[in-house]
Amino acid sequence: MSYELHYWPGIQGRGEFVRLALEATGTPYVDVARGAEAKGLGLPALQRQLQSKTATQPPFAPPFLKDGEFVVGQTALILQYLAPTLKLVGRSEQARVWTQQIQLTIADAVTDAHDTHHPVGSSLFHEDQKPEALRRATEFCRVRLPKYMQWFEAIVVRNPAGSRHLVGGKLSYADLSLFQLIEGLRYAFPKASQRVLAQTPQVMKLHHRVATLPKVAAYLRSERRIAFNEQGIFRQYPELDIE
Amino acid sequence: MSYELHYWPGIQGRGEFVRLALEATGTPYVDVARGAEAKGLGLPALQRQLQSKTATQPPFAPPFLKDGEFVVGQTALILQYLAPTLKLVGRSEQARVWTQQIQLTIADAVTDAHDTHHPVGSSLFHEDQKPEALRRATEFCRVRLPKYMQWFEAIVVRNPAGSRHLVGGKLSYADLSLFQLIEGLRYAFPKASQRVLAQTPQVMKLHHRVATLPKVAAYLRSERRIAFNEQGIFRQYPELDIE
Repeated sequence: MSYELHYWPGIQGRGEFVRLALEATGTPYVDVARGAEAKGLGLPALQRQLQSKTATQPPFAPPFLKDGEFVVGQTALILQYLAPTLKLVGRSEQARVWTQQIQLTIADAVTDAHDTHHPVGSSLFHEDQKPEALRRATEFCRVRLPKYMQWFEAIVVRNPAGSRHLVGGKLSYADLSLFQLIEGLRYAFPKASQRVLAQTPQVMKLHHRVATLPKVAAYLRSERRIAFNEQGIFRQYPELDIE
Repeated sequence: MSYELHYWPGIQGRGEFVRLALEATGTPYVDVARGAEAKGLGLPALQRQLQSKTATQPPFAPPFLKDGEFVVGQTALILQYLAPTLKLVGRSEQARVWTQQIQLTIADAVTDAHDTHHPVGSSLFHEDQKPEALRRATEFCRVRLPKYMQWFEAIVVRNPAGSRHLVGGKLSYADLSLFQLIEGLRYAFPKASQRVLAQTPQVMKLHHRVATLPKVAAYLRSERRIAFNEQGIFRQYPELDIE
């Protein structure tokens, strides 16, 4: 039985980190909320899971993954769960823990990037928190973004197995997620990220390497890849792109 | 060799979730940054780790745990790493994944609670973001806090092994962390949390059960438990406690 990925249709969002792991490894999956309601899929299928009054392990929010009857929520944990089967993590405990530590730091960066347009709260429209957004985006572009990227550059440069990957000598889910983080940052903050990423050449080489993996490249060209847009985590609001 | 916990001295912060797991199980540890500089401990010892130019797996931020030469960062991951040894998680993969999913959701709630006083950014003083803080705290107290707590209530009520614990029939690190989250919320938002927690009786029973575990109770009375204060994650700013 295929994995079922449950995530909001219409945006890449946090679901995209899971999609990339599945796509990069050619793993079959059903993207539930993007399927046809006539086939029992679509947004109602996601909502049924999320609003269940009886599920003993209900996820707090999408994305979540169904593997048969087993349900896993939280993006980083979904990736940790899938990784041994998808061969996207090393075998040693040390490699597994380190890969997940990087992933959780990427997750923090994603939340920080999201909060630039929603610093007051996700239940309000961006338009109702624009002054706050400007202040938070300034902080993000000038302080947080360089701090995260310098850390990624340091760890890829110091990888004892070489700078082709974040962990060891093979592709891991953290490499795929770092690629996606950079894609999002370059969309939302083209000027700020150009300035910051000019200082992280090994991270950019890793980004390019992931983008040109045949299965990833084919996925990015496909209709399965949703375009970035202004409902997602990474939004192109030029006034928030602080140089 | 004892575990070394590295965290900022003077606040409970995210380090407290790790401290509670160690204390509740009577596990020896060195609280590095609170030790004497004359013994090679204190804040300089933490800073040396954090600022190392050669460490191949440098943590992004405290807390981090040293287990011999192995270093683990990210609070939820530290707990996941320690839990099998400390017997604070079930043996099955299902129990381990579910416990970590809960922990990551607690971590999200902690970040949300923190950002009520720092909605613009952590590098600025709270005093420089008070209007934004008021808006974010209103959103937190009215929308996010009830949503999180209703989810915790639902999962503890639905636990097939009974409502004494979040996962299965034994204490897990998620129980300890939920206790700490509630402690922090009641300190920072006494009115808002009283209103919300009145709707989550099983969560409150679990909180009481954890508080009265002999090792936890002894720890809470000890000098090792730092008092809540206005440098930590949970701060008592009455204007942010929205009923």
